[in-house]
Amino acid sequence: MIVTFLSDFGLQDDFVGTCHGVIKKIAPETEIIDITHGIRPGRILQGALTLANTLPYMPVGVHLAVVDPGVGSSRRPLALRDGDGRVFVGPDNGLLLPAADRAGIVEAHELANPSYALSPVSQTFHGRDLFSPAAAYLAAGVPIGDLGPPIAIDALVHLEIPDPVVDDKHLSATVLGIDRFGNIALNLSSEDARLAPGTRVELTARGQRYFAIAARTFADARRGELLLYEDSYGNLAVAVSRGSASSLLGIDEGDALQIELR
Amino acid sequence: MIVTFLSDFGLQDDFVGTCHGVIKKIAPETEIIDITHGIRPGRILQGALTLANTLPYMPVGVHLAVVDPGVGSSRRPLALRDGDGRVFVGPDNGLLLPAADRAGIVEAHELANPSYALSPVSQTFHGRDLFSPAAAYLAAGVPIGDLGPPIAIDALVHLEIPDPVVDDKHLSATVLGIDRFGNIALNLSSEDARLAPGTRVELTARGQRYFAIAARTFADARRGELLLYEDSYGNLAVAVSRGSASSLLGIDEGDALQIELR
Amino acid sequence: MIVTFLSDFGLQDDFVGTCHGVIKKIAPETEIIDITHGIRPGRILQGALTLANTLPYMPVGVHLAVVDPGVGSSRRPLALRDGDGRVFVGPDNGLLLPAADRAGIVEAHELANPSYALSPVSQTFHGRDLFSPAAAYLAAGVPIGDLGPPIAIDALVHLEIPDPVVDDKHLSATVLGIDRFGNIALNLSSEDARLAPGTRVELTARGQRYFAIAARTFADARRGELLLYEDSYGNLAVAVSRGSASSLLGIDEGDALQIELR
Repeated sequence: MIVTFLSDFGLQDDFVGTCHGVIKKIAPETEIIDITHGIRPGRILQGALTLANTLPYMPVGVHLAVVDPGVGSSRRPLALRDGDGRVFVGPDNGLLLPAADRAGIVEAHELANPSYALSPVSQTFHGRDLFSPAAAYLAAGVPIGDLGPPIAIDALVHLEIPDPVVDDKHLSATVLGIDRFGNIALNLSSEDARLAPGTRVELTARGQRYFAIAARTFADARRGELLLYEDSYGNLAVAVSRGSASSLLGIDEGDALQIELR
Repeated sequence: MIVTFLSDFGLQDDFVGTCHGVIKKIAPETEIIDITHGIRPGRILQGALTLANTLPYMPVGVHLAVVDPGVGSSRRPLALRDGDGRVFVGPDNGLLLPAADRAGIVEAHELANPSYALSPVSQTFHGRDLFSPAAAYLAAGVPIGDLGPPIAIDALVHLEIPDPVVDDKHLSATVLGIDRFGNIALNLSSEDARLAPGTRVELTARGQRYFAIAARTFADARRGELLLYEDSYGNLAVAVSRGSASSLLGIDEGDALQIELR
Repeated sequence: MIVTFLSDFGLQDDFVGTCHGVIKKIAPETEIIDITHGIRPGRILQGALTLANTLPYMPVGVHLAVVDPGVGSSRRPLALRDGDGRVFVGPDNGLLLPAADRAGIVEAHELANPSYALSPVSQTFHGRDLFSPAAAYLAAGVPIGDLGPPIAIDALVHLEIPDPVVDDKHLSATVLGIDRFGNIALNLSSEDARLAPGTRVELTARGQRYFAIAARTFADARRGELLLYEDSYGNLAVAVSRGSASSLLGIDEGDALQIELR
């Protein structure tokens, strides 16, 4: 059975490796796919969107996700099952829902059965003591209902995903994420703005104006030129051909960016 | 068979991947768990404590660890076996001992048999040429005694772990490590200072004084507040709720921190 | 079957994890060895040299490599087979050739069969949509000829690898790479300069002169001293014992470095 694993743990410390150890001790036949552990610390929305975006590329399995600034508080630990038979494990802070909602949640349980957790459960590392064991036992075939009592699906915590403002000539967008290449993903789909390749647009970020060209891919713009394109998850995004758009524009996740079609 | 792997190699270069390749060529059935490769370059103590802290969460196997600033010098390469049947492979510089001492070392050998190393052995990458092959052959079932002559256990190099100074009202601690969240682990256990949640304490770091609150978890303090808590490995630690304590206090591994109980 | 995987994707984003998911969905029995994903963005030469250097340490398998600043342009996607039965998958930009040339390329094909790609293929993430599926199907036993039409081997794109200038007393070298320890690999082999350990040499970098000592390993120099040594891949390299040579010399990949034998 496959366990996929996404977190904000980074790879500098032992958090991820320790969770791998816990899972393999409980369920030695499990294979773990690390989606990423580079979610910025505590950024639940970034984690939720990444999990939802990558899910279609993952084998059906147990999908463990931990971005959990409320660890040790009263937020509930969850296991969800969706209509495709995928199982999700993580905190009830909205992290799992955009992914689990893709096929529709059919069952939700609170992780409450100490038989499927380490003992004791620390106050600050539920990834190790609670979520990884739950994922491992689920991967090993324990029925989801054994992990704890059911929760009403409409009682689960939802995230607010910022909406763009779109009119004929202007798009007001929010930066959803920046990748290692400095490419800027926006909360716009290509349906919000159907731009023929080669169209010139004007961007405004932090009070500065820039020209950009609508393009299919990086190589369609000249080196150093700004381009607006549909990224590989279907979001509109801003890049610099062979450069970093986030460095050029000086913007970050959550910042606003205006697009004016000319 | 499981090989766990901890090093200061980082993931930017090919060091870790190359060692994986070496291990899988020799022992294709082996599964590798990367505990972490984010130990700071050459920090033997950080590596030793991380290996010891995470060991209980790892399946019994071969535990490969390489933090080896003395590579190519006369420091000996080692294989150790402990009372639980775990085997440790790494340099004789103290790195392995806090972990191997948990269950007690029952056997120590110098890696001296060229049949279980690559040929030639480079002067600067024993992780690839000496330690990874030894770990792989051990995982494949080669008896530890075949890898080289026995060494007296009391001749192994030990690290000095800094001791805290503890009296009624003051604790003088040393920073053992900082994690990606900026949480500061101290060389104090919760037995050195039994602090009821909610107790206020005063911290001194780099000549500056700060107030902190004793708490069980991050969410028990207000956003931005300093807290003193027992971390998930049982050390006292300092955090900022939804922030970075190491940035706030400006301190690093090895620095001193005073705690005054009021 | 083994798939090795090298890229400039980094581990901060989900690129690598998503490719793992794609591979495991298509070929669940495959094992993936991540050589490194820390190639600097778009640095084809660094990727090519790393792939070639590490190949001898890897099991025979499918060798997937993606450093692809021309993604979405007309550069061709490739599968190559070498004389040892290794198969290489990646872009036709020179990345694969230093590795595939080690045993000699016997067959080259363009990836053109949509049966062995995801659908649709995005414009900007061929690693996910084209190269990972191809690698997975090849690992699962699909014959290389099924992936697309043959390409003439001498029509493949080659990289220029900078040549050193070597005379009796002077070596003019180029920096090939810097590792996490700050060690500087040069485009010189130990055959370009046979230096007896202990020999003193003079280095010039960015107009500054430095003394260094020829040594076998870091521990042969004093703490803080510059040394010139043969690194574990057979290149001459510059290090500082227990320090960072790249920080001291302030140089980077592609920069020039002069060595004067005295």
